[in-house]
Amino acid sequence: MGKSILPSPLTGIIPPLVTPLLDRSSLDAVGLDRLLEHVIGGGVHGLFILGTTGEASSLDSDLKRQVITRTCATVADRVPVLVGISETSFTESLKIANKAHECGAHALVLAPPYYFPAGQPELLEYLENLVPMLRLPLFLYNMPFTSKPVFEPDTVRKAMDIPGIVGLKDSSSNMIYFHKVQSLLADKPGVSLLMGSETLLAESVLMGAHGGVCGGANLFPKLYVALYEAAARGDLPLARELHRQVMRLGAEIYEVGHYASSGIKGIKCTLSCMGICNDFMAEPFHRFREAERNMLKARLVQLGLL
Amino acid sequence: MGKSILPSPLTGIIPPLVTPLLDRSSLDAVGLDRLLEHVIGGGVHGLFILGTTGEASSLDSDLKRQVITRTCATVADRVPVLVGISETSFTESLKIANKAHECGAHALVLAPPYYFPAGQPELLEYLENLVPMLRLPLFLYNMPFTSKPVFEPDTVRKAMDIPGIVGLKDSSSNMIYFHKVQSLLADKPGVSLLMGSETLLAESVLMGAHGGVCGGANLFPKLYVALYEAAARGDLPLARELHRQVMRLGAEIYEVGHYASSGIKGIKCTLSCMGICNDFMAEPFHRFREAERNMLKARLVQLGLL
Amino acid sequence: MGKSILPSPLTGIIPPLVTPLLDRSSLDAVGLDRLLEHVIGGGVHGLFILGTTGEASSLDSDLKRQVITRTCATVADRVPVLVGISETSFTESLKIANKAHECGAHALVLAPPYYFPAGQPELLEYLENLVPMLRLPLFLYNMPFTSKPVFEPDTVRKAMDIPGIVGLKDSSSNMIYFHKVQSLLADKPGVSLLMGSETLLAESVLMGAHGGVCGGANLFPKLYVALYEAAARGDLPLARELHRQVMRLGAEIYEVGHYASSGIKGIKCTLSCMGICNDFMAEPFHRFREAERNMLKARLVQLGLL
Amino acid sequence: MGKSILPSPLTGIIPPLVTPLLDRSSLDAVGLDRLLEHVIGGGVHGLFILGTTGEASSLDSDLKRQVITRTCATVADRVPVLVGISETSFTESLKIANKAHECGAHALVLAPPYYFPAGQPELLEYLENLVPMLRLPLFLYNMPFTSKPVFEPDTVRKAMDIPGIVGLKDSSSNMIYFHKVQSLLADKPGVSLLMGSETLLAESVLMGAHGGVCGGANLFPKLYVALYEAAARGDLPLARELHRQVMRLGAEIYEVGHYASSGIKGIKCTLSCMGICNDFMAEPFHRFREAERNMLKARLVQLGLL
Repeated sequence: MGKSILPSPLTGIIPPLVTPLLDRSSLDAVGLDRLLEHVIGGGVHGLFILGTTGEASSLDSDLKRQVITRTCATVADRVPVLVGISETSFTESLKIANKAHECGAHALVLAPPYYFPAGQPELLEYLENLVPMLRLPLFLYNMPFTSKPVFEPDTVRKAMDIPGIVGLKDSSSNMIYFHKVQSLLADKPGVSLLMGSETLLAESVLMGAHGGVCGGANLFPKLYVALYEAAARGDLPLARELHRQVMRLGAEIYEVGHYASSGIKGIKCTLSCMGICNDFMAEPFHRFREAERNMLKARLVQLGLL
Repeated sequence: MGKSILPSPLTGIIPPLVTPLLDRSSLDAVGLDRLLEHVIGGGVHGLFILGTTGEASSLDSDLKRQVITRTCATVADRVPVLVGISETSFTESLKIANKAHECGAHALVLAPPYYFPAGQPELLEYLENLVPMLRLPLFLYNMPFTSKPVFEPDTVRKAMDIPGIVGLKDSSSNMIYFHKVQSLLADKPGVSLLMGSETLLAESVLMGAHGGVCGGANLFPKLYVALYEAAARGDLPLARELHRQVMRLGAEIYEVGHYASSGIKGIKCTLSCMGICNDFMAEPFHRFREAERNMLKARLVQLGLL
Repeated sequence: MGKSILPSPLTGIIPPLVTPLLDRSSLDAVGLDRLLEHVIGGGVHGLFILGTTGEASSLDSDLKRQVITRTCATVADRVPVLVGISETSFTESLKIANKAHECGAHALVLAPPYYFPAGQPELLEYLENLVPMLRLPLFLYNMPFTSKPVFEPDTVRKAMDIPGIVGLKDSSSNMIYFHKVQSLLADKPGVSLLMGSETLLAESVLMGAHGGVCGGANLFPKLYVALYEAAARGDLPLARELHRQVMRLGAEIYEVGHYASSGIKGIKCTLSCMGICNDFMAEPFHRFREAERNMLKARLVQLGLL
Repeated sequence: MGKSILPSPLTGIIPPLVTPLLDRSSLDAVGLDRLLEHVIGGGVHGLFILGTTGEASSLDSDLKRQVITRTCATVADRVPVLVGISETSFTESLKIANKAHECGAHALVLAPPYYFPAGQPELLEYLENLVPMLRLPLFLYNMPFTSKPVFEPDTVRKAMDIPGIVGLKDSSSNMIYFHKVQSLLADKPGVSLLMGSETLLAESVLMGAHGGVCGGANLFPKLYVALYEAAARGDLPLARELHRQVMRLGAEIYEVGHYASSGIKGIKCTLSCMGICNDFMAEPFHRFREAERNMLKARLVQLGLL
């Protein structure tokens, strides 16, 4: 079904979608629809919902189900939909995975259980137990910033022999890690290696990554698609120029506030300024307040983006 | 109600209860009852369920509800029951907190949302929003090993002015942190400062902590109660001697396997060897296999504990 | 010789002496003499020169030689003098060790070579090669904050079988580490276990440490000696009260400036305010400037210390 | 003088030279000469002596002087010679810098003082004091693995306004850091930005770095020169292919032993197998012993490199 539209390997730009919210427990469904049309219209090659940028960890299970249902319905197989199932509980992950399958999503994404750190053999055994129970292909998600135990390169290599695992989203921002994994996967041409940091999109695609999961593609999908395509076809001057634009956007939009949450807040606030969706953020975070919103707005105007 | 039996400050030994399981989604209810009688019979001053040792993060929400219901029913107000509500989602924490209140538990315990790290002002605002919605007193839970953002000393001090917050369980194993918090709370005699590391129980109580949340008290409650009491009344020679016994138990029981999970596995396996409850562990972990179980058994026999 | 006055184990308060300087390459020899009389007059049980607090890493080899010569001459065997030989180069450590022996110092102190991190077996082999070439007893120095590779507990235990190693100064501020080492050294009653963090002096001596290497003892030697003695004889109420005074001094004196160097700057500035010695600091640091000096002075006056 | 042959910016491959030793305090001068001819014959664009790979921190000051003297004499201005002056003592750094100038070296390289971590304003002030006293241009050296305080991007930017600072060698292996620095230096075309990790050479040059300081260029200078040149002229297929060769060499040669020292040991052992120089390593390290040497030899034979 849904599976049929998932390329092997998956390539291109797959935005980690923010979750538009009206309040702590209500989806901004209309905003979500607008956002979906915005990024699909920008040419993205897939969508990743319920990831870190999607505030999955802050949402309760009802809200997560609504996000999956609405996204799949609105996208209607135009691009593959990947659904994050990163829970600390095995059975909760399974429940979301089943929901995703039922709604017609195309793949799942899983970070290691992120509360109590597991050893690498424990992680591998966990995948061996979980993956056969999933009814959709799975991408591993390496994200040391939020989930302490990482999938180390050897574990990634072994995991890729488990039927059903089809790729890795690497958000470690560690290119040494990326190259080690890439070397180990040289004999697995169908495995998709996706870069999670937009600062590293250009170079990783130049060096052979299949695409990127870039938060900024919520805002400016065409820019990221163009950068991906330039790098993929080896157009170095254009790739460098678009990389510089990505760097500039990051410096202007992601560092308005303090704390690590500033990046997601910046994206949501910009989307709100663009009239696409609400910028409410679930606890423990809070959307930019007036001063930060005004500062961000002024920057966007100066960049000619508003 | 339940609230009435919670002393201010709470003092003594409050074991972080393991969660006896039959399998991934079934409570070992009979084992749980035996465990509760074992520790209450050993003289503990309270119980903490659904903490790190209780594998809360690995359990789905149904199982957590069963643990709360059964524990409260079996304990029947003989000692205060503290319930962990550490979820990454605000509304999920609230749901468990309401369940705990409804079942007659006496207090709640909360670590910072542990997926995406919040800044200190964000954490404080989060507490200011959450605590007024809770119907039971709350202990903060500082646990850097599993939840990246900690409650820094200044945040703890400010939080203690929020009505409803009554204590801190410090599992940082960082005595500098402990002393800083203790200094800042000098004017708050009703606030309970509990030590989460059993290796540091003796010295922290000698220096003024109110008690300890010791994993080993699942196994040998009388030893930890005796150590607490010796330290609390300033019996230094006895406190040192019992501290040495605690160190020896830790070296023999908690380091049988590899990986951080070895400690909880060691406790569950020992409880199983003692005939108290099942040692099943929820994913991503797995109980000790035959070789480790036999090694642990041999050690327990040699220590005269089996 | 000198060796004869070194107790086994060494106990009590051994201040890590600051190095009074006139400028980047000149010793404030008169200030050093005054400082030595100040601390010896305060009852300290030994002296540690050329440690972290002594800015050893910022001094060139000529200055280090002058510090050793002058200190040994002024102290004249009244208390044991311990000399830091923590260099990244084996032969440089050896040269300072020889100088210390020649001047009549009583023991040496060595952190792991702190530039390129060695593995534990490499560290042990290094000690096996170095120690037989030393003509004075050696204390190991565990200081993760400045030297990445630590002496892990098992390495400490093995090292204590090398003739010539007589103790450990633990500045990890990690009481779990301390207790592990203490357990492993239970059969080595002559080995001296010294606490490097003054915040942890009370509890570590209560639990069996032999003494403390406390920066604050440069300033108020009698306070630290009294705290050591109270804890050593088990006078818990007095130990707690003096501990509180130590905490207060730390909060007032060590946190005036920013950056980690604030502690040493605070000690040197206070000594200068007390008329004992110059507060010049070698690069890359700079003594407190006017604003910070005035703030510190005001605090000292308020505490009745000036 | 020497200065005249230093391009602005410096580009290309600048091997961080190993220091051939006969024993703990004797230079293998003949081996050093052979190594110099080997790398210069391989087309390298400069040399960096007394860096991390050169074991500078393990050598005493006499040995360092010999290394400088011999290298400058043998190289005789054929390529620029950069000399590491990373000492923890200001005056010791100055002494080596003066020696380098006197011997005709062309530039200096400085990491932050690596024992006691300085704050960023402290580091900047340190550079402002030190650089005017140097008689050769200076490269900053960012190396978090060995020197805790890094030169943060803003500090690098400010430092580049101090006359005499001409570049940065970045060994952080952190491409996010690299891109931030590169953005901040967009208006400083004469500043040389050199990559310290050979795994990241291809992509950093593709994205605009000026060259690389690659340990492997001690062994196979032509490979690294070819990779640099391919990346610099945008020949993506060749750059990728040579990158794969570099990855393979790293996996075979740098990971024979345990511990972080394995990389330098692997390079020195390979050089010894190639008949170029002795593989003695200064304490606290020890050259590969028989088993590891044989394993490495077998791998080199299998790769057709011996």
